[in-house]
Amino acid sequence: MDSGSSTVQFPSPRGSLTTAVSSSSSGAQRKMSADSERSLHTRPLTDTAVIHKTQTSTMSTGAGDSPAYQAIERGSLYSLDYRVFIKGPQGIVSPWHDIPLFADKDKSIYNMVVEIPRWTNAKMEMATKEPFSPIKQDEKKGVARFVHNIFPHKGYIWNYGALPQTWEDPNHVVPDTGAKGDNDPIDVIEIGSKVAGRGAVLQVKVLGTLALIDEGETDWKLVAIDVNDENADQLNDISDVEKVYPGLLTATVEWFRNYKIPAGKPANEFAFNGDYKNRDYANKVIGETNEFWKALMKEASPALNTISHVPEAVHQATDEAAAAAVESTPEHGASAALPGDVDKWHFVQG
Amino acid sequence: MDSGSSTVQFPSPRGSLTTAVSSSSSGAQRKMSADSERSLHTRPLTDTAVIHKTQTSTMSTGAGDSPAYQAIERGSLYSLDYRVFIKGPQGIVSPWHDIPLFADKDKSIYNMVVEIPRWTNAKMEMATKEPFSPIKQDEKKGVARFVHNIFPHKGYIWNYGALPQTWEDPNHVVPDTGAKGDNDPIDVIEIGSKVAGRGAVLQVKVLGTLALIDEGETDWKLVAIDVNDENADQLNDISDVEKVYPGLLTATVEWFRNYKIPAGKPANEFAFNGDYKNRDYANKVIGETNEFWKALMKEASPALNTISHVPEAVHQATDEAAAAAVESTPEHGASAALPGDVDKWHFVQG
Repeated sequence: MDSGSSTVQFPSPRGSLTTAVSSSSSGAQRKMSADSERSLHTRPLTDTAVIHKTQTSTMSTGAGDSPAYQAIERGSLYSLDYRVFIKGPQGIVSPWHDIPLFADKDKSIYNMVVEIPRWTNAKMEMATKEPFSPIKQDEKKGVARFVHNIFPHKGYIWNYGALPQTWEDPNHVVPDTGAKGDNDPIDVIEIGSKVAGRGAVLQVKVLGTLALIDEGETDWKLVAIDVNDENADQLNDISDVEKVYPGLLTATVEWFRNYKIPAGKPANEFAFNGDYKNRDYANKVIGETNEFWKALMKEASPALNTISHVPEAVHQATDEAAAAAVESTPEHGASAALPGDVDKWHFVQG
Repeated sequence: MDSGSSTVQFPSPRGSLTTAVSSSSSGAQRKMSADSERSLHTRPLTDTAVIHKTQTSTMSTGAGDSPAYQAIERGSLYSLDYRVFIKGPQGIVSPWHDIPLFADKDKSIYNMVVEIPRWTNAKMEMATKEPFSPIKQDEKKGVARFVHNIFPHKGYIWNYGALPQTWEDPNHVVPDTGAKGDNDPIDVIEIGSKVAGRGAVLQVKVLGTLALIDEGETDWKLVAIDVNDENADQLNDISDVEKVYPGLLTATVEWFRNYKIPAGKPANEFAFNGDYKNRDYANKVIGETNEFWKALMKEASPALNTISHVPEAVHQATDEAAAAAVESTPEHGASAALPGDVDKWHFVQG
């Protein structure tokens, strides 16, 4: 595609509390140059200007991701100052709040924000307390967190991320699990053939869900497949997964059960005896967490950062605030060193 | 270490057909600058001069590797022109012929040349038909070869390489397996905690061996541990492996059985019903392949390239030949693209 073309049709990047907006888009183009984006706007985009004044890195976020969004790296990978902001056609957006939950509501296709590419170890997550919720390196006591490799696995064994416009309310006890929400957007594992990029926005079908009970909190893990995956047509419900990927669901339970053991924590537990719930159940859970998110966005003094472009949100984003959020982070630099033991294999007896 | 220091003590880099030469070395230094190396020699090193005239890349080859050797990259990673030459204190050497088999013969500690780092997919091997046997990208019908990921595994699940100064003679039927040798140096899997660099020279203890029968040829896979690994003291024979790394030996058999299936080949078979032979057996096998190699080095017209610095070898290396070998390869460039399906997981039903 000609980067100077003005005929590019952008999907709407901003969701709404009342209307699902499709972010699906045709065409093979993965990344859009800032020039082509700017050509579509007549008003100055402060955040875009900032991006080009300071050093950033835009990433190709992987095959099949939405061309509407770009990942913009700041700081140094693996260090605590690392941030990935998401830029939509109209500028910096909050991937948590501003990317619509649905890519296609009629077909139950969701947008998924990839935080952790398959086979990597760095624990990354959207910063729910920071404006524009950039993806950041998770930390514990000031130290960057990496998951250990649990034999026979290498790092995360799926593309891991979250659904935008969802929130697992920590004040709500989930009746079926008896445990409160974990205060985060709902997590997704994407089981397709490709390794997605950090910050990619995938369009996924949700096939089912596992109810991890992590330190007493309900932490749903949705199982999903990129709709552009070569196997997507064969996967329509949780019962299809064993046929196409034999062993993967069992390995997934083992992974979640054991992954914190090398760090000295106990094995995780599960509701429903570790059984997966099906697609319909998962879609219902997503709907509930979407409602919790809508309520959060209407709070005057929320505990988390809800600045967004969502029309009904109490805390409205401005281009100036977006520029300030990006500017408050260091320029993109060289990656920090990985911990010396990140490649070690841990043999946990099941 | 001061790169200009002239007090560095080098281990001897060159083996002999009659005397085992230790290549073990103390000190934390991993890489030696060309300057410090040159300072030790009074004669001009043509190959060193070439290296600094043309573009090369020296790699840090990983923790615990011998500081006596440096890996020198040429061409483009993942392309067919990629080569890794090995440079010892006195210049370019053949890692197959010139690195001594033993790091410490009295303790049965061997040198191992790492060809494939754990968790990578590119099939690399020493080029036995090329002068100075650089590590190269293996190819099939003009296409670079990558191993598929077989669930639950990611790429090679150990550091993979070979023992120098060994040869599995294709004219010799191994009595215990009934199958001829595969015409290569003997293969080793190193099961330690660290990911080794491509071209690293590790000092390993051999714990046992598996007899893969690959397309009718005996293809020994030695099981070894880096003597500097944190678990090395606990691992002294094949029976120790299950205690320290439960499941790894079984996974290894599965891996070798299945790894060519996605490429349309049949499952590999094993001698001894897939059982591992112990340390003593493995050491005996190594001794035999070392004898075959010695005989090969005395052949006037060998089918493989035997140019070396080994004193008794018929075909003696010269600095000019080493320079020509390096110069015949392209300068080190950017990596070629990985195949689009390299990250796919294949689910092979066992």
